[in-house]
Amino acid sequence: MKIIAEIFSQGDEVVSGQIVDSNAAWLSGQLTDLGFTVSRHTAVGDRLDDLVGLIAEIAVRADCCICSGGLGPTIDDLTAEAAAIAAGQPLTFDADAMERIEAYFAKRQRPMPAINRKQAYFPDQSVRIDNPGGTAPGFAMLIQRCWFVFLPGVPSEMKTMFGSVREQLPARFSLQPGKLVTLRSIGIGESAIQQSLDDLQLPEGVRLGFRAAVDEVQTKLLFPAGFDPIEMAACARQAQELIGDYVFGIDGLEGRAGGDLLAVTDRLVSAKNYRLAVLETASGGLLAAKCQGRDWLETAYIAKDMADAIQQLQIDAGDDPSAIAQTLATQLKQRQNTDLALVQLYVGSQDDYRRKDGRIVLYNCLQTGTGSYQSQQTLAGAAQTKQNQAALLSLDLLRRRLQNRCL
Amino acid sequence: MKIIAEIFSQGDEVVSGQIVDSNAAWLSGQLTDLGFTVSRHTAVGDRLDDLVGLIAEIAVRADCCICSGGLGPTIDDLTAEAAAIAAGQPLTFDADAMERIEAYFAKRQRPMPAINRKQAYFPDQSVRIDNPGGTAPGFAMLIQRCWFVFLPGVPSEMKTMFGSVREQLPARFSLQPGKLVTLRSIGIGESAIQQSLDDLQLPEGVRLGFRAAVDEVQTKLLFPAGFDPIEMAACARQAQELIGDYVFGIDGLEGRAGGDLLAVTDRLVSAKNYRLAVLETASGGLLAAKCQGRDWLETAYIAKDMADAIQQLQIDAGDDPSAIAQTLATQLKQRQNTDLALVQLYVGSQDDYRRKDGRIVLYNCLQTGTGSYQSQQTLAGAAQTKQNQAALLSLDLLRRRLQNRCL
Repeated sequence: MKIIAEIFSQGDEVVSGQIVDSNAAWLSGQLTDLGFTVSRHTAVGDRLDDLVGLIAEIAVRADCCICSGGLGPTIDDLTAEAAAIAAGQPLTFDADAMERIEAYFAKRQRPMPAINRKQAYFPDQSVRIDNPGGTAPGFAMLIQRCWFVFLPGVPSEMKTMFGSVREQLPARFSLQPGKLVTLRSIGIGESAIQQSLDDLQLPEGVRLGFRAAVDEVQTKLLFPAGFDPIEMAACARQAQELIGDYVFGIDGLEGRAGGDLLAVTDRLVSAKNYRLAVLETASGGLLAAKCQGRDWLETAYIAKDMADAIQQLQIDAGDDPSAIAQTLATQLKQRQNTDLALVQLYVGSQDDYRRKDGRIVLYNCLQTGTGSYQSQQTLAGAAQTKQNQAALLSLDLLRRRLQNRCL
Repeated sequence: MKIIAEIFSQGDEVVSGQIVDSNAAWLSGQLTDLGFTVSRHTAVGDRLDDLVGLIAEIAVRADCCICSGGLGPTIDDLTAEAAAIAAGQPLTFDADAMERIEAYFAKRQRPMPAINRKQAYFPDQSVRIDNPGGTAPGFAMLIQRCWFVFLPGVPSEMKTMFGSVREQLPARFSLQPGKLVTLRSIGIGESAIQQSLDDLQLPEGVRLGFRAAVDEVQTKLLFPAGFDPIEMAACARQAQELIGDYVFGIDGLEGRAGGDLLAVTDRLVSAKNYRLAVLETASGGLLAAKCQGRDWLETAYIAKDMADAIQQLQIDAGDDPSAIAQTLATQLKQRQNTDLALVQLYVGSQDDYRRKDGRIVLYNCLQTGTGSYQSQQTLAGAAQTKQNQAALLSLDLLRRRLQNRCL
C-alpha cells in the first residue's frame, strides 16, 4: 500500500522565479529513498491565504508533507501562523526555543533583534525541531490525515534538520523502501557509462538510472525491498567492473564507506599518513579550498599559468608540458619534503579558458616515493566549470593511484 | 487588477527528485517580468488522473498557466490526453503537425518511429505551437477561465517555443509589469536589516521583501507599474543609507550596474588598474579561486594558519593579530610590488574551525598606497560556511575601501 508524500516550498523568491527550488528535488529524493510515493510538489508565495489554503488541501490528500521556507524572523515569514490557522490551534510561546535563539546570537556576539522573538512561537501540539545552523527552528504536527514537517528554506539548515526527521519517519509510517546503490564516477560521461553497461545482466525487479551531477556522474541501481544483500553487492561489483576505475566510490552497500571524491580521497590519504604538497594553475586555489582543513595537505601553491609555476619553483623547463609537470612535481616534493607532490598545469590561452566554447588541456602529475603518475584531459565549458573540473581531476589522479595501491 | 498565473511541470523524474525543476523558475521569471502575478508552481508525475485533476483545479483559479513536459511520444506522455479530458474535447489528428514531425526525421535521415504519430494529436479548438528544435509540438487552449500553454519539458525546446508565446501574451492580457529593485548586502543579517529599515517611508504600493542567500542578504523593493524612476531611485538610496555600507550593490536601477560582490569588486579594482596580492588562511584558497581569471590578482598565498603565514613571509611578529596582519600586509605589498595587499588571518583552533558550533575570529588587513584598513568579524557555522564567509568578507573589505574612495 502506497504512502503518499508531498513537497511544499514557500517563498516569493520561488514562485517569482528568482531562485530554482532545489530543496524540493532534494527532499523528494530523500522521501523516495525512504519508500514514500511522492505525488506532488507545490510552491506558493508569502501570502497567508495561499499558505492556509494549500496546507488544508494537502492535509486531506497526503500522508506526509515536508515543507521548506517561511520560518524566518521577518514580516513575510508566515508559515507557523498559516499552520496554526489550518490546524485550528493557537500559536504559543516556547521559552526553550527562545533561549536557543538568544544563544545563537550570543555566540556570535551580536544583540538579538526583537523581531527574532517571533521564531519562538509554534502551533499548539506541534513538536519543535531545533536548528543547529540558524535561528529558525522547525516543527512537525498532524493536520487531518497528514503529518506535516516544517523546515527552514536555507538548504544547508534544511538538510541538517531533515537528518533528524529522517530517522523518525520510519517509526511513524510502515515504509518498505527499496535499496538504492549508487556508483559514483568522474572523468566519464553519462552516455559512455550507459554503453559500457549494455552487457549488464539486471536481476528481476532491479531498476537502472543515471544522474549527471556537477562534480560526478551517478549510476543508480534501485533494488526492491528485501533483495538479497550478497546478490546486490555482486550486481554492483559487476557494474563497477564494466564502467572501470572512473568509479571512485559506491554508496548504499553495507560495510562500504561511500562519500564524494574528496571523502574517498581523504580516507585513502589519511590511512597511509601521507603528507601532500600541491601546485595548481587551472583551478586557481579551488583544489586547496576543497582540501581545506585536511591535515595531510602540507602546502599549496597557486600559479597563474605554466610560466608562473616554472618561475615560482625556479626550474629549468623544456617545452613539453608533461615533462615540465614531472620536473615541477619532483622539485616540489623535494622542497616541501612530503610523501606526495601533485602538480596541475594546463595548456591554452586565457581566452580559451574564459570562453564557454574554448578548450584547455589539463596535465596532472603525481610524484610519489616510487615514481610519478600522469593524467591528461581536455576541458571545455564555462570558466567556472573548467576550474571545478580541474580541481576534481587533480584530486582524482591521487585517488586512482591510492585506490590501485601502486605507490 | 492582478492577473494570476501558475506554472505546472509534469514528469516522474521531477516529483521523484531525479531532476531539479529549473523550467518552473525560468518560466515564472518570464511571467513575473511580463506583469503576471505567479501564485503557484505545481509538479505531478505521469499519472492521467493526477494530470486531469490538476488541470481542472488550475482552470478555475488562474488566468494563465504555462505547463512543461509530457508531450513526448512514449506511453508516459499524457498531457495532450489529460488536457482534452479536462476540457471535455476529443483529440483530433493534425496533418500539418504530422508533416512537420516527419520532416524533422527526414532532415536527420532517420526513419520516424510509429509512436511519434501520437504527437500530432491535439484537443479540438487548441492552437498548435510548432517546435523548431524537436519532435514535440506544443499547444494552447482556454479551459474554463484559464489560458493554458503546453510546452515540452526539454529546457532548450521549451525556452525557444516560449519566445513566440511571450509575444502573444500581452495581446491576451492587460499586463502592467512592476519594477524590482534589489539591495545586495554582506556582513549583516536579515533581521538586523529589517530593523534598520523601520524608519523607511515606503511610498504607496511599494512592497518590501528580504532574502537570505548563501553569499549575501537581499532587500527587495517591488515598485508598481508606472512608478516614477526618480522617486524609485530616491527610495532605494534612502534604504541604502539606512542599511549602511553593508550594501555592496543595487540591482534594477536604470543606469546602475548591479551584480554580486565579486562583479562589483572586479569593476572597482579594474577601473583603477590596481594590482592585488593576497594571503589567505581561513578561506584556504577559496578567495583566490573566486578571483580566478581576474587580471588584477597578481599573487595569492595560502597559509594554514597565522603561524604558517608568519613563517612564509618571515616577519618578526608580536602577538596581536591586528598588528601581525598589518605587518604581513606591508611585507606582502613590498615583496610583490603591488598597489594593494590583502591579508586574511584568523584566531581559533582547528577544532573551533571544524566544529559547527565552534567560533573563529577573522582579521582582514588591506594595505594600500596611503594606509592600511582592517576589519574583524566572528565566524560560526560549518567549516565550509566559515571558509566561504572568510573569502567573501576579505573581498568585502577591498570593496568597501574602493567604494568609499579613500585609498
